[in-house]
Amino acid sequence: MDILQEIGQSLTAVREKRPLVHHLTNFVTANDCANMALAIGASPVMANDPCEVEEMVAHASSLVINIGTLNSQNIASMLGAGKTANRLGIPVVFDPVGVGATKLRTSTAERIISEVRLSVIRGNMSEIRVLAGLSTDMKGVDSTAEETEGEAVAKKLAQKIGCVVAVTGRSDIIADGLKISLIDNGHAMLAGVTGTGCMATSLIACFCGAVSNSFIAATAGIAVMGIAGEVAHASLRAGDGLGAFRMKLFDAVSNMEPQTILRYGKISDCRRDNHAG
Amino acid sequence: MDILQEIGQSLTAVREKRPLVHHLTNFVTANDCANMALAIGASPVMANDPCEVEEMVAHASSLVINIGTLNSQNIASMLGAGKTANRLGIPVVFDPVGVGATKLRTSTAERIISEVRLSVIRGNMSEIRVLAGLSTDMKGVDSTAEETEGEAVAKKLAQKIGCVVAVTGRSDIIADGLKISLIDNGHAMLAGVTGTGCMATSLIACFCGAVSNSFIAATAGIAVMGIAGEVAHASLRAGDGLGAFRMKLFDAVSNMEPQTILRYGKISDCRRDNHAG
Amino acid sequence: MDILQEIGQSLTAVREKRPLVHHLTNFVTANDCANMALAIGASPVMANDPCEVEEMVAHASSLVINIGTLNSQNIASMLGAGKTANRLGIPVVFDPVGVGATKLRTSTAERIISEVRLSVIRGNMSEIRVLAGLSTDMKGVDSTAEETEGEAVAKKLAQKIGCVVAVTGRSDIIADGLKISLIDNGHAMLAGVTGTGCMATSLIACFCGAVSNSFIAATAGIAVMGIAGEVAHASLRAGDGLGAFRMKLFDAVSNMEPQTILRYGKISDCRRDNHAG
Repeated sequence: MDILQEIGQSLTAVREKRPLVHHLTNFVTANDCANMALAIGASPVMANDPCEVEEMVAHASSLVINIGTLNSQNIASMLGAGKTANRLGIPVVFDPVGVGATKLRTSTAERIISEVRLSVIRGNMSEIRVLAGLSTDMKGVDSTAEETEGEAVAKKLAQKIGCVVAVTGRSDIIADGLKISLIDNGHAMLAGVTGTGCMATSLIACFCGAVSNSFIAATAGIAVMGIAGEVAHASLRAGDGLGAFRMKLFDAVSNMEPQTILRYGKISDCRRDNHAG
Repeated sequence: MDILQEIGQSLTAVREKRPLVHHLTNFVTANDCANMALAIGASPVMANDPCEVEEMVAHASSLVINIGTLNSQNIASMLGAGKTANRLGIPVVFDPVGVGATKLRTSTAERIISEVRLSVIRGNMSEIRVLAGLSTDMKGVDSTAEETEGEAVAKKLAQKIGCVVAVTGRSDIIADGLKISLIDNGHAMLAGVTGTGCMATSLIACFCGAVSNSFIAATAGIAVMGIAGEVAHASLRAGDGLGAFRMKLFDAVSNMEPQTILRYGKISDCRRDNHAG
Repeated sequence: MDILQEIGQSLTAVREKRPLVHHLTNFVTANDCANMALAIGASPVMANDPCEVEEMVAHASSLVINIGTLNSQNIASMLGAGKTANRLGIPVVFDPVGVGATKLRTSTAERIISEVRLSVIRGNMSEIRVLAGLSTDMKGVDSTAEETEGEAVAKKLAQKIGCVVAVTGRSDIIADGLKISLIDNGHAMLAGVTGTGCMATSLIACFCGAVSNSFIAATAGIAVMGIAGEVAHASLRAGDGLGAFRMKLFDAVSNMEPQTILRYGKISDCRRDNHAG
């Protein structure tokens, strides 16, 4: 089946199943993530006390761990909820916000990766390079002739951790160690709204809560966010700016249909062999 | 006086008094609750450290306790502020978000109910059943011929605690143990926006800060939210979705007038005797 | 150079430099402050754990300290980040939200002022009076014939602390101890949106991250917020209310150009000698 059709079917699955998505996330964009989960058709919950997260995640279909505003208390919650999710077979999606910027973020991200089995990691290229063990200013991965360095980094991290890696940027890369999809949707205004990365992570978790294929779920979440950016931009009127664009992102996700994805989706689905080491 | 006229007068009272409404609430929807309080004409404050909540609540006309994102520190703040409010005669409105989902939520809600004298509790039917001591899947209240089971549950909890109980859902129930009002306003899109329950609770507290009758205040808060949902929906244009709807909720509340309530309000005011046990 | 031209050039400087602005701020309006920083062309970061704030602030061009939702943990973060910023020459902008309302706020604000060297303090007149050592109901500053009491209070605090003081209200006052600018931009609806004060503080910090003159930065931040309020109000349509107005604030800031400032700015630049004691 064509990947756009698979994403369209995944969207229908989210709307039908209405998965409960538990979030351990930051206080800056929690409201946006909750509204984005509702817009795609899922149901968000944001409990974060260490005493209750394990009980809460047991009700959920997927778990988001987002380290945007880390503190000693929510690190314990992240690890506890993540391990419980693993035990119960609930997929975990990790957003390593700002990893590399401080020792606390880097060590916490490493601890989460080593103690929790992740289904998907989503970050920007700088964050993904840090997790792959590369400094941001060195070329550290040999890319093959058919792939860019970014693709090689994503694949390397996917292989190292054994999960799907989604790298968002001007063009997005989804890798699972064997295959890669490249997404050319999106709009520059997305970088002008706080939390569009966090929201993309939440969307991935909504898909993970409704379909079993994490590679499709990650591709779907990123594609929906990118397409929403294009639809939102296309509907701007004279005088509109980042405020209207931000509102229209939620409009576009709540109105998105499988046909929208077929019409707008620009995804190259590269089911490659594993060349990079 | 007709209940719609009373609500209209209560709205005028909020706009004239501009009550300060102190919130101990969750970080996910705190911004929305603050903006909703401003939209109705009140003044919100959200201080939450245990060291200052008792001093802050003393300046306020009403207090919201919302357990959406509980933690050990804010539980102490909730109890301290609630008791101070009681001592000073400041009405307390309680939103038991997610009670029943975890032991922490259930035990905290029970503790708040036993230690703080509440004016109004607002929740969905599942939460209200838990507080009434009923599991969600058992029929545990004998309803009389004239009332539904939901009405009987609301009345039972109101009698048990001695406060007004507001149950929001497809149709809303306000009970104080003796009488019940039923509200048929609202729109399905309200369930697609995070925090509309929390915002309804904050609106109730805004009314409690301006009028002394908690039953009218609870009915007014729920009615305003429901009418805002209808007005917001009616003004949607082609391409609008949950983002525009959410923005228009605030428009509708800030533009609401007593006449809007007279025109849209669908409230059956049932001043019944006490039949249910 | 005319002050409106200087502000226009400062806006261009923010857009070109894209300063990273670290925020230690409250959870109620953090999302709005982040989106406002992006709208003006800066880049916000909101890490707040005591373990990482000193490392994070070292990457930043300016620091916001906002005490809207104080707690024991974030007080330590504020002091640690503030001192590190001082050591590294990074300007610090302070928003003493609610100072005077509780002992915790007043003592924390005093501690921040005594331990951290501030570039700008922004507050309303009640907050600024508290910091100047005046109760809100006494006339405590002798104003000269050419200045109002508010101007004298702002100047007194600026001289006491040795920083720029920005007082927002119906008309805004920027003082640095020697000179004063008065801004007559803004719209009454700004008081109907939560966090417009916090957002103005964040805008000042964005300008502080791009230009070295704190007096110009403070005037620019306050002017941009006020002009945005006017532009947002002017573009409201029938049925719009506080929800649309709030969204349009972000539109107006993201679309603001130096010409917008020249066209709308109402700033009287009073380079006075120091008369008040």
